Amino acid sequence: MEKIKIGIINVSDRASRGEYEDLPGREVQRLLELWLSCPWEAVYAVVPDEQPLLEEQLIKMADQESCCLIVTTGGTGPAERDVTPEATMAVSEKLLPGFGEQMRQVSLQYVPTAILSRQTAGTRGSTLIVNLPGKPKSIRECLEAVFPAIPYCIDLVGGAYLETNEKYMKVFRPKQ
Amino acid sequence: MEKIKIGIINVSDRASRGEYEDLPGREVQRLLELWLSCPWEAVYAVVPDEQPLLEEQLIKMADQESCCLIVTTGGTGPAERDVTPEATMAVSEKLLPGFGEQMRQVSLQYVPTAILSRQTAGTRGSTLIVNLPGKPKSIRECLEAVFPAIPYCIDLVGGAYLETNEKYMKVFRPKQ
Amino acid sequence: MEKIKIGIINVSDRASRGEYEDLPGREVQRLLELWLSCPWEAVYAVVPDEQPLLEEQLIKMADQESCCLIVTTGGTGPAERDVTPEATMAVSEKLLPGFGEQMRQVSLQYVPTAILSRQTAGTRGSTLIVNLPGKPKSIRECLEAVFPAIPYCIDLVGGAYLETNEKYMKVFRPKQ
Repeated sequence: MEKIKIGIINVSDRASRGEYEDLPGREVQRLLELWLSCPWEAVYAVVPDEQPLLEEQLIKMADQESCCLIVTTGGTGPAERDVTPEATMAVSEKLLPGFGEQMRQVSLQYVPTAILSRQTAGTRGSTLIVNLPGKPKSIRECLEAVFPAIPYCIDLVGGAYLETNEKYMKVFRPKQ
Repeated sequence: MEKIKIGIINVSDRASRGEYEDLPGREVQRLLELWLSCPWEAVYAVVPDEQPLLEEQLIKMADQESCCLIVTTGGTGPAERDVTPEATMAVSEKLLPGFGEQMRQVSLQYVPTAILSRQTAGTRGSTLIVNLPGKPKSIRECLEAVFPAIPYCIDLVGGAYLETNEKYMKVFRPKQ
Repeated sequence: MEKIKIGIINVSDRASRGEYEDLPGREVQRLLELWLSCPWEAVYAVVPDEQPLLEEQLIKMADQESCCLIVTTGGTGPAERDVTPEATMAVSEKLLPGFGEQMRQVSLQYVPTAILSRQTAGTRGSTLIVNLPGKPKSIRECLEAVFPAIPYCIDLVGGAYLETNEKYMKVFRPKQ
């Protein structure tokens, strides 16, 4: 059996120039290591806020690397260089608006500026792509909220079977 | 006065081949019979998960049968053959994102996988189209949540005047 | 320093013909006068429910008048002549779905027909455009809910720096 691959992309001009440590990407990796009980491998990238570069990276991780899940961090706000949702929408075959709605809802409990996030999710072939915010604290709040639905979503699009350590993350698969 | 018509479409490969009973469509009919106090007639169809066939059925029920409301069940998930939202968006003139948002919100109280539903609603001429999930229990939860707004929506697009038995379903029409 | 400009557009066939007083526009102006502590100037318009005219007005206020914020009232429902969201989407470079989601959520506490509102928000250059409903009571409920995020949003797109009287409106700017 092939090893399960998960893509982690930190979308950030400054991190891609090495001006910042990649704290967002590391936070995603830390959470997935804590939650997942099945063997998996991270496919990692730091890319600047350039839509064509991000699209290229998403396509590569989905089509060539066969990642079952790609998580992006950053680039979801209203600023001119925030283009992560645009890239995600461009490469996705189906959009899943419920992810963005729930993540904004959860973030609204902490900050009123949560409504400024345009984060979304979509599927491309057997890959689920999920946008997260750029701040480690918000990354955790958002990923924790939507993760219970992620393994079943990947089942539905024919991706790898993710299993979790229920002590840290309880996922839900409806009985058929 | 012409009789009020409501379209009910069960979108399902297996039901359309007769492998399943049409429980979703029957649940919609049961609820509408319980709630509506005005005379009405169901226009009924079971179609496979094929976007062109579903679009054709939606257009026929809206433009030829003059249904004031069309309710679909099933085909709203992320799987490859789930195309109900795509067909709905393609034939609608105006989308009403509030329906999907509220239905996902309500379903989230029961299952975390509610965010995987891409169900939406839209108008075409004097017809309101609403997507529901495929499971009878979720159908009831979702339709119960949004129905109070449906008769007024149909008023606004110039469709039939729906009246309900307030004991079972209380609808809301704002005073002008 | 140039004076801060805020556009207020009442979108209404009847108000544009003088059949109604412009109560919605006045309510927006009253709230902004109460909340904002920085000097600002209203750029005011009443336009009929015609998408090309509304687009023209939005573009003029954004590109020529350099309004940092444009607030529209009315025209967000499902009726044939409700075209405010369409005009907003057509002139916006980035859509901010979180605004519509939160405003519908807040309005749902008062009326089940809140889901019929298609109100949205978007950015065009350094201008934020926000759609509000047409009824003064709902205008207040919606604008009050989203306003805490508006000044920071305008900061992010490079618009004017809005300051408020914290007694009446507390805004939020995250620490960088």
